[in-house]
Amino acid sequence: MNRGALYHRHKQNWAFMYDDAHVRVRLRTARGDIDEAVVCYGDKYDWHGTECRTPMTIRLSDSLYDYWEADLAVGTRRLSYRFLLGSGRERIYFGERWLGEQPPEESFGNFEYPYMNPDDAIRPPGWVKDAVFYQIFPDRFARSGAVAAGTFEPWGSAPTKQNAFGGDLSGVLDKLDHLTALGVDAIYFTPLFQAPSSHKYDTENYYAVDPQFGTVETLKALVEACHARGIRVLLDFVFNHTGSRFPPFQDVLERGPASRYADWFRVLRWADPDTGVSLVYETFGYEADLPKLNVSHPETADYLLQVASYWLREADIDGFRLDVANEVDHRFWRRLRETVKAVKPDAYLLGEIFHDAMAWLGGDQLDAVMDYPVRDLAIKFFASRTIDAETFANIVSQQLAMYPQQVCEASFQLLGSHDTARLLTLCGGDEARMRLAVLFQFTYIGAPCIYYGDEIGMSGENDPDNRRCMVWEPEAQNRELFAFYRDMIALRRAHGALRGGGIRFLHAPAGGSALAYERYAGDERIVVAFNVGEQPQTIRFASEQSVAGDEAGGETWVEAWEELRTGEVRLPDGGGLELPLGPYGCAVLRHRVRKGAPA
Amino acid sequence: MNRGALYHRHKQNWAFMYDDAHVRVRLRTARGDIDEAVVCYGDKYDWHGTECRTPMTIRLSDSLYDYWEADLAVGTRRLSYRFLLGSGRERIYFGERWLGEQPPEESFGNFEYPYMNPDDAIRPPGWVKDAVFYQIFPDRFARSGAVAAGTFEPWGSAPTKQNAFGGDLSGVLDKLDHLTALGVDAIYFTPLFQAPSSHKYDTENYYAVDPQFGTVETLKALVEACHARGIRVLLDFVFNHTGSRFPPFQDVLERGPASRYADWFRVLRWADPDTGVSLVYETFGYEADLPKLNVSHPETADYLLQVASYWLREADIDGFRLDVANEVDHRFWRRLRETVKAVKPDAYLLGEIFHDAMAWLGGDQLDAVMDYPVRDLAIKFFASRTIDAETFANIVSQQLAMYPQQVCEASFQLLGSHDTARLLTLCGGDEARMRLAVLFQFTYIGAPCIYYGDEIGMSGENDPDNRRCMVWEPEAQNRELFAFYRDMIALRRAHGALRGGGIRFLHAPAGGSALAYERYAGDERIVVAFNVGEQPQTIRFASEQSVAGDEAGGETWVEAWEELRTGEVRLPDGGGLELPLGPYGCAVLRHRVRKGAPA
Repeated sequence: MNRGALYHRHKQNWAFMYDDAHVRVRLRTARGDIDEAVVCYGDKYDWHGTECRTPMTIRLSDSLYDYWEADLAVGTRRLSYRFLLGSGRERIYFGERWLGEQPPEESFGNFEYPYMNPDDAIRPPGWVKDAVFYQIFPDRFARSGAVAAGTFEPWGSAPTKQNAFGGDLSGVLDKLDHLTALGVDAIYFTPLFQAPSSHKYDTENYYAVDPQFGTVETLKALVEACHARGIRVLLDFVFNHTGSRFPPFQDVLERGPASRYADWFRVLRWADPDTGVSLVYETFGYEADLPKLNVSHPETADYLLQVASYWLREADIDGFRLDVANEVDHRFWRRLRETVKAVKPDAYLLGEIFHDAMAWLGGDQLDAVMDYPVRDLAIKFFASRTIDAETFANIVSQQLAMYPQQVCEASFQLLGSHDTARLLTLCGGDEARMRLAVLFQFTYIGAPCIYYGDEIGMSGENDPDNRRCMVWEPEAQNRELFAFYRDMIALRRAHGALRGGGIRFLHAPAGGSALAYERYAGDERIVVAFNVGEQPQTIRFASEQSVAGDEAGGETWVEAWEELRTGEVRLPDGGGLELPLGPYGCAVLRHRVRKGAPA
Repeated sequence: MNRGALYHRHKQNWAFMYDDAHVRVRLRTARGDIDEAVVCYGDKYDWHGTECRTPMTIRLSDSLYDYWEADLAVGTRRLSYRFLLGSGRERIYFGERWLGEQPPEESFGNFEYPYMNPDDAIRPPGWVKDAVFYQIFPDRFARSGAVAAGTFEPWGSAPTKQNAFGGDLSGVLDKLDHLTALGVDAIYFTPLFQAPSSHKYDTENYYAVDPQFGTVETLKALVEACHARGIRVLLDFVFNHTGSRFPPFQDVLERGPASRYADWFRVLRWADPDTGVSLVYETFGYEADLPKLNVSHPETADYLLQVASYWLREADIDGFRLDVANEVDHRFWRRLRETVKAVKPDAYLLGEIFHDAMAWLGGDQLDAVMDYPVRDLAIKFFASRTIDAETFANIVSQQLAMYPQQVCEASFQLLGSHDTARLLTLCGGDEARMRLAVLFQFTYIGAPCIYYGDEIGMSGENDPDNRRCMVWEPEAQNRELFAFYRDMIALRRAHGALRGGGIRFLHAPAGGSALAYERYAGDERIVVAFNVGEQPQTIRFASEQSVAGDEAGGETWVEAWEELRTGEVRLPDGGGLELPLGPYGCAVLRHRVRKGAPA
């Protein structure tokens, strides 16, 4: 046994309350290294009187590890536990301070989840895992008639990093039918607040809708109209830094250390006119126009919390997308959560974090992050085809194992955004590859988000080209692609197993371009298969008969796989299903058990 | 290379701010498996322009792993990093989503410590690592003349779980000279608040000093007197549960669900006189007299926070020992920290947690926990001699690797308490073994705490025998042992390397009874060696000459080891020091570099 590969620690992704009644424990072992894992658990105050055992199963595997899981129901809400691992004839006990053939005598060497406090549970808003988002970049989505002609660039001309196109909130309001027809039920708006740039990440006034976009009244009307259609609204807030035009920063520039806002920023050196030394302050990245806020200063934190509270109450928004969330301190996010959830308990707190975000996702700060790591893998596997199926499955699994299940379910799944080249472009303009990527997105864990225009076939290289004006002429839109997106959304909505539950990779060979995984929840099992290559492929996966013969009350039942897009039924043979996939082919198969003669 | 054994994750004990200017990164590898580890690090916003490298060193090792560390100074406060590991000819890069021979092209596959927020740093109070505590069980420590004779059991008679001996705070005040003579500078009092039992963990009134012990005025006078002597005072608070006499619980018993305190406890089933069903509620352990508080109820949490605030302001106490800390929710501890630190920023928040406590020690909740795991090991190695030196060193190292350095430095090191049999008893009455254990305690990381009476040779089996009345007759006290404790305290005070800094095990053989480790901080190096067996042992450890010959400005310098208790000097030969240790022998050697002829 590779004892060195073992890993477990209480809390985080290793032991967490998945619901009020269960603690899910997860154990890392070297891949393929052990035959059996069992959790021995009980109450530490009566270990010998309460110890019981439950087997674990491998739920995920990556290149190096298997991840075993078990859900433990704990009567007293107090959990002491250790693992019993078997490999060939070897049997070892693994606890917090114990690794050996004999179990520790008492529970002292065990792991502990000391008490299942409901307040400590990680609970993202329930609606998120069922939601489909649509991202709108307001300057480029739609321009209403209210915008004076000639003030902005002509709609549809080439974007630069500086120019603006006059998109506005009334324009969005006019186009809600497009979103309803598509079937999305949440909008993520990049920033709306007053700022000089077209992207508005350089906030000048946190309390004003940018005059180009409208007023607070326009925003309220828009949110109300969205809510009437069952569409939730997520706004983008930048609390890591401001734009340099933000009046407190201007005051600091003017008055230096005498400014009453001197502590609102992270000044490293004050300007000295006598020596010619200039002001040095921390910024976002290396952007002098984006001074970093000092949210450790209580007044600054209070100000930002009031901003959040104001928009929640005033415009009834449903969530916050938080820019550069991992460079703002944890204490501030805890306060933001308390503030926001007190007003709207199911508001969604979504952070922009590109790396391991466990430190923000323990239930006390953010609900979720934008899943750029999985996007990166999806682009590499489906679009640029620079990684094989095995690598894709391994790193996706590794990502899933990094977080509690409910965190994955509430994550924000994107294939592109205003910060990346567009999906179709990354697919080299090949719509077939794009569709496979989208099928993955809509059958994977987490709420999918469509970047405006992707659904009608827009392309675009990196910023600024990815921020072209939305194409509204029907003849210039790819309506077949739109219909495909609409079907994908409907498919996801129709099947709970695509939204919650687990994922199991069935086929992901080294060097391979074909991939298959199963999504499962309760009794529902759906297999999704892809061939991202030009050569036909045949996938075979095990398909166990779950109800048969006498066990089904004398009836003869047989299992079958139903292609969800066509209704076609496939029957397994010899305990497996053989699935031919043409070039860029795919399949979405639901497992059925129905009356009939055995195959 | 055993790639499976690798572990690193940002935050927790793996990447933390040790001071404002550095992030310490720690990496787990299989023991003895790799030759070299380097951290490649820079700013993700300019990875190619900022990448630099620093070598790591093995700071700790346990049975399975080496733990490598490096301190990284990060100019921009933003840290992106990956490891480069070498084993023989093999070279691999290890990042968050990367393990391979080639580095990932950009920083996206790296680990990140995204921003060094001062507010996120883990900062226990600075005084704790230099403190020596003394634990007082108030009923049994000292009875003043104010206590009416005959009301209590005769002082010194056998304790039971029920009886009381009339110890009081005035009694403690009378005996402060004892503490001053010993040299301690902090007292940990088990609970003082009004409660029916002798141990007072069944709080009846959080706002009253128990009448047996005195009044709030007595407590204030005692704290003031302690402060005048430079002694800090830590009180014990029970926020997990109350005693059943706590008036809100009595109200619940009386009024049932109609009680205004109905939500203060965790009632599982209300009593129903019609059916004879009785009240069921959660408790501490299985103790019906200790109903668990529901601190998720805001009113309950507010009440307890006000209690904390009251005693901090009213009696000027210096810290809180928090009973059953791991069964109270994290949210409450965060609020307690904000409340307490706002009044007294250097108050010490010490939790009673017997297992992995990382989830409470991230800087946002508690400062430290009582180190029962290391106590357990010390008892097994020094007292009962049921584990060997190798096991002791391995598990101690594993414990140290579980936490950030500053958390270890602020931990509460005990060899016994009111919850365990006494040290001398566990040593089978053998004072020689006890002295070795105490030498370990005072030369190890974390603030030592002496359980009242241990220093004068008291013995006692488990509760209630471990709570005998303090022996005050000088002739009945072991004054030589007292002098030994006094010397241990003085030794610790005299050497910063015994309080902060690192530890390195030099000698800890399998099956062995001899142990040696080095404590180091800055230029100071102190070796502590023990022989816990009856047979003489000889230890040999490497002793590198750090300054010699020409490098020392033409002078001839030579290294030497000075026995700190006797002043005796030992000279190394052949690059090592040979150290004979008699039965139950020990040595405390400081490394010196002095002028003189080479040995």
